[in-house]
Formats: sequence, C-alpha cells, structure tokens
Amino acid sequence: MRIGGKSYRTIWVDEGGPHVSIIDQTKLPHRFEIVRLTTAGEVAHAIRTMQVRGAPLIGITAAYGVALAMIADPSDAGLETAVALLARQRPTAVNLRWALDEMRRNLASVAQPYRAKAAFALAGRLADDDVVTCKKIGEHGIQIIRAIAARKQPGQRVNVLTHCNAGWLACVDWGTATSPIYHAHDAGIPVHVWVDETRPRNQGAALTAFELGSHGVPHTLIADNAGGHLMQHGEVDLVIVGTDRVTATGDVANKIGTYLKALAAKDTGVPFYVALPHSTIDWSLSDGMEIPIEERSGDEVLRLSGRTAAGDVQLFDIAPEGCRAANPAFDVTPARLVTGLITERGICPASRDGLVGLYPEREAAA
Amino acid sequence: MRIGGKSYRTIWVDEGGPHVSIIDQTKLPHRFEIVRLTTAGEVAHAIRTMQVRGAPLIGITAAYGVALAMIADPSDAGLETAVALLARQRPTAVNLRWALDEMRRNLASVAQPYRAKAAFALAGRLADDDVVTCKKIGEHGIQIIRAIAARKQPGQRVNVLTHCNAGWLACVDWGTATSPIYHAHDAGIPVHVWVDETRPRNQGAALTAFELGSHGVPHTLIADNAGGHLMQHGEVDLVIVGTDRVTATGDVANKIGTYLKALAAKDTGVPFYVALPHSTIDWSLSDGMEIPIEERSGDEVLRLSGRTAAGDVQLFDIAPEGCRAANPAFDVTPARLVTGLITERGICPASRDGLVGLYPEREAAA
Repeated sequence: MRIGGKSYRTIWVDEGGPHVSIIDQTKLPHRFEIVRLTTAGEVAHAIRTMQVRGAPLIGITAAYGVALAMIADPSDAGLETAVALLARQRPTAVNLRWALDEMRRNLASVAQPYRAKAAFALAGRLADDDVVTCKKIGEHGIQIIRAIAARKQPGQRVNVLTHCNAGWLACVDWGTATSPIYHAHDAGIPVHVWVDETRPRNQGAALTAFELGSHGVPHTLIADNAGGHLMQHGEVDLVIVGTDRVTATGDVANKIGTYLKALAAKDTGVPFYVALPHSTIDWSLSDGMEIPIEERSGDEVLRLSGRTAAGDVQLFDIAPEGCRAANPAFDVTPARLVTGLITERGICPASRDGLVGLYPEREAAA
Repeated sequence: MRIGGKSYRTIWVDEGGPHVSIIDQTKLPHRFEIVRLTTAGEVAHAIRTMQVRGAPLIGITAAYGVALAMIADPSDAGLETAVALLARQRPTAVNLRWALDEMRRNLASVAQPYRAKAAFALAGRLADDDVVTCKKIGEHGIQIIRAIAARKQPGQRVNVLTHCNAGWLACVDWGTATSPIYHAHDAGIPVHVWVDETRPRNQGAALTAFELGSHGVPHTLIADNAGGHLMQHGEVDLVIVGTDRVTATGDVANKIGTYLKALAAKDTGVPFYVALPHSTIDWSLSDGMEIPIEERSGDEVLRLSGRTAAGDVQLFDIAPEGCRAANPAFDVTPARLVTGLITERGICPASRDGLVGLYPEREAAA
C-alpha cells in the first residue's frame, strides 16, 4: 500500500528497535500519525483503544506484544502474563487468540535467553504470512468480480458494497475484503465501491474511504442505512465484507450492521461474500450465536471525532445531554445468508462441508 | 407536548400575526430556537432546509405557507404560484401534496378578499385535525403494546424500536409512531424505546431522543447498525415507524434504512408496524417502487452538526477531504414485510383489502 507516495505496512519493527511502530488509526483520515510501542502494556492499550483494529492486524499486533514482553521478562510466567493481558483486550476477533496461541506454542520450547529474538522472528513471519494470505484472497476474489464484469456492457462499472474496513488498514497489507477490489482495479476492471460509513466508529468513512482514495479506486461514501435501497435499485453487483470470526459451519461475526446488509442482499438477489484468512475460522464453534459480542462504551455512539472548518480535530456530541446509548460492536450473519467465503485457498460455500473442503486437515477438528 | 415545562405545538400562528412560528428542528437537540415565517418563500425555505420535517408537519406547514401567500396575493395566479412553489420542496412525502390540494380546492371558491382569512382558518383546521388524528393513532396503537405487556412478567419492560423521528416534532402534537408509546407510558405500561440515530441527519439522536427525554420515556440511543443484532437476541418486542407515503397496496416509503429494519424484523419474528394518518396514503399508487425518492446533498453524509466540549455547535467533517457521498433520503419497505398499519381509524393489514376495509369510501379510487 502507498500513502502519499510512500510504501507502508500497518505495523513494522523499527531498525535499531526493540520497538514496533503502527499507524494510529483513531486519527485517520484527519491526521497520519505513527505511534511507537515498546511494551506489551502499550500494545494492549493500542488494541483496546483501536489505534490498531481489524481482525488480522489485531492478531499480528498482539504477536508483537508478546515479543516486546519477552524482552522485559522471558520467563514462562512472563509469557503467560503477556498472553493473558493481550487476549482480553477484544473478545470477538478470534485472530487475536489464534496469534497468541501460535506465539505461546512456539515459544514454550525456546530457551528463555533466546525467546525475545525468536518471538520477533515469529511475529515477523506471521506478518509476512498475512501479506501473502491477503494477496491470495485477492487472486481468488478477483474471479468473482471478473465474471460480473464480463456480463456488463463495455465500460460499465462493477459496483461492490463493503461495510466497515477490511482493507490494508485492517491487515498488514492488501486487506481481506478489499484485496479482490484492489486486484480488480489494478487489472483494469472498472470497479466502484459503495463505502458504508459504519457507525458508530465510522471505519468506512475514516479508513476505507481513505485507503481506496490513496489507491485511486473510485468510491462513494453512504450512510449505513442506504445499502438496502441501492440493492433494491440494481446499484450493487456484489457485497464483500471481512469478518472477525467464522464458525466451522460458516456463520460470520463481523462489524455491527453486517447482518442487515446480508438480509438485503438475500432479499434482492445480490451475492454476499465474506473474505477471510484461515486464522479467522473458529473450528471450535458450530453456532454463530455462541460468538462473544463485544459491548463497547455508549460514548462511541454519543460522541464523534471530526474536523472543524478551521482544520482542527475535536470530539463533538450529537445527542441530547444525559442521553444513554448502547453499543454492541459486532453482529452475526447466519451462513444461510452468505453466498460464499473467499479464503487464501479459494472460494467455498459458507458451510462445514465448504470449509472442510478447503481445509481438509481440519476435518477431525470440525 | 411539553418542553422545559411549557406546552408547545410544532407550529402555531402568533397573536397579532400575520405570521407563523415553528421550532427550528435543525438546531435541536443543542438549541431550542423559534423561527418566525412571514412569506410562502420563507415557508418553502423552512421545508427545504428541514427546519420543519416529518410528513404530517410538512403538510401543515405548507398549508400555512399558502395562507401567508394569500395575504400578499390572493389572486388565482397567486394561489397557483404558492402551491407550485411549496409542492416542489420535498418530493417523497405525499402529505405535502395532500395538504396543498386541500388548500387549493377549498380556496378556489372563496372570493379573493376573504381568501387569506379562510386560508388561515383552513390551515388551522388541518393542524387541529392532525392532533386529533395522531391521538387516535395512539389510542389504537396502545392495544398492541398492551397485549405484549400482558405476556411479560410483571415489571418487565416492552422494548419498542423506532427509526428516524415520527414523533410530535414530525407532526403538530403526539406524533404517529410515538403516539402509541406516549399513550402506553402515560397508562403506566413500562415501555422502553431503542432509538435508531438515523444517519445521515440523525433525527433519532437529535429529535426522537430529545422528545422522549422531554416526556420522560426511558430510551436508549443506538447506531442504525445495531437493531438487527438486538432483534436476534430478543431485545426488541416490536418496531413502530412512521412513513412519508403508503401506496394503496401497503408499500411503505420511510426514512432511508427502514427497509433494513423491516427485513431484520421479518427474519427474527418481530412485529413491524407503521403508524400513519390518512393523509399519508397515496391511493393513486399500487407499487412502492414508483414512489419518487428524494436524493439529498452528499454533504449531509460528509458533515455533521455537533456540540463541542466548550458548548458551541459546529459543523464537522468526518470523511477524507474530497470524498464523494450519495444520499438517498428514503427507501421503500414492501408490504410483505409489514405486520400492520396503525391509522386513526384502527389497525389493518398492509394491503389493498386492509386499507379499503378502513377507508371504504376510497374503494372506487383504490
């Protein structure tokens, strides 16, 4: 990905570390600020306050959190403490737990003096793997867009609707839901994206619009309320979203509001795809209603960050003083509403058979 | 309705007129400001900029706009010019056209010197009728809430979800969707309202939360994305919304996003009701997809009004600079998703038979 002509990943180890740098995503799109993380506690804070967010990136950041913890205390107790601290910051995204399990399992057999170095190497490998995985998701997903483009008149654009941000800002690079879009755009397919603003935290308006704009992909911001109407009127060719956890049966937890778009897609005959890396699959669950849904502060509904005419960024209140708000951060879309899952191994139905077909090594677990 | 201990309607003729006063709803909930309208042009501006909004109130305000025009020019040409000016300010709400038709039809036979006085009297009668109509909607609608309360444990609240503002701020008093809620609350039924914030203009956060708070009805503000999740988890007992136009077959145009809530209600078995006065029925249409949908400025998506920590109200940008936005203001919910219509004459199925059953005098037209 490129921002202002410079190549970035969303997380990297600085030369001369030991510390890790991230883009503070709570400041986008108004300010581009890099934050340096030097302890597991700082990493936990960055995850909790959503300076980093997006299921894949949360996992990679947590892995680096373990690596930073190993500098301070490479003991078994230090490892367990760091894993426990990081695991409890966000309950819904299973990638967080997956990455921490990977770190713990691999570091347990490493002698303590070598753990920090091994941990950085392992976190780096997870980050590199995520880039490759997201690229492959794009290479599979572009086939869907290409097939739709082939049915259009020459020059007619393919309209993709996406919810929240499952772009490179949610991963290390490429993104999940956006990877097929970037691949299609780069291949010369005229693609246009309807960007749900994604209240309450506006990751669509703040992040997806920002990164599509950086890459030069045509896009239009819409209120979350508008997608059903656009589908009714033939303005959406397909929906692609990311996910924070997929059950072994294909139920999909994703940003609050995803379920509503899946219902509208079903009602209007619009294909609804979910893009994900293998680390998002929770093979231990078969009912999406068992996925823990994070309840965040109502303040996120009552108070927004915005840029004034003078150019400064402030928080502002939109509701009457004293108003109470509820803020469930995710919802679950039943597999019956999902046309297909786009993974690094290919596209499959949202079902146990579909997932096991792509991941036969998990058949026993599933 | 009461605001700060004082009784108000949303529109009234000042003693010593000739002018009409409204509450500037674009300033709520941050400021309570009254605006004085003295010409049809000022009324048109108030409707277009949504200082007044809500299908019933738009109609009444337009009626007063004709009355003000009759002071300046009571000729037939003056009447036609005023009606044409006012009719084109908002395309979706049929009440606007209905009220203007009422004014024109009744004033045509009045001699010019008496037209202004007759017009004010007629507009006043339409306003009084709206209050009675909305009260009756509440008296019918409370039966639905009472029946749900009867199935609950003592003390358990009835959870109503509503979208946008179809409250007294959208009418002259009582509201449409809120009238059953106010009646239930006043009757001692423990009712709690989930208030969709209703992006992009936040009429839920700004207006519905404000008026429910003024009346003392327990309520919780939510992002528009949250309702489906709440329904999946049994947190919503029924949905009641207003409407800007209902076809003779029961299709419902209402604020953008209503269709998504209706889909979720259908999918989760939650009753979905629409409250309306007879003036909202468009007997000339049988397909909701023929209802003209207003496309408003994308700026309403990109820029919000909010209150800073210092207490001043400003416009804020939430998207990247140069971002493009689309802003369809309404969508259409097919009759098949609607459990029932609550009108001043009773509750009926959302169908031609249902509507004709309540309005047999329209059978020929329907």
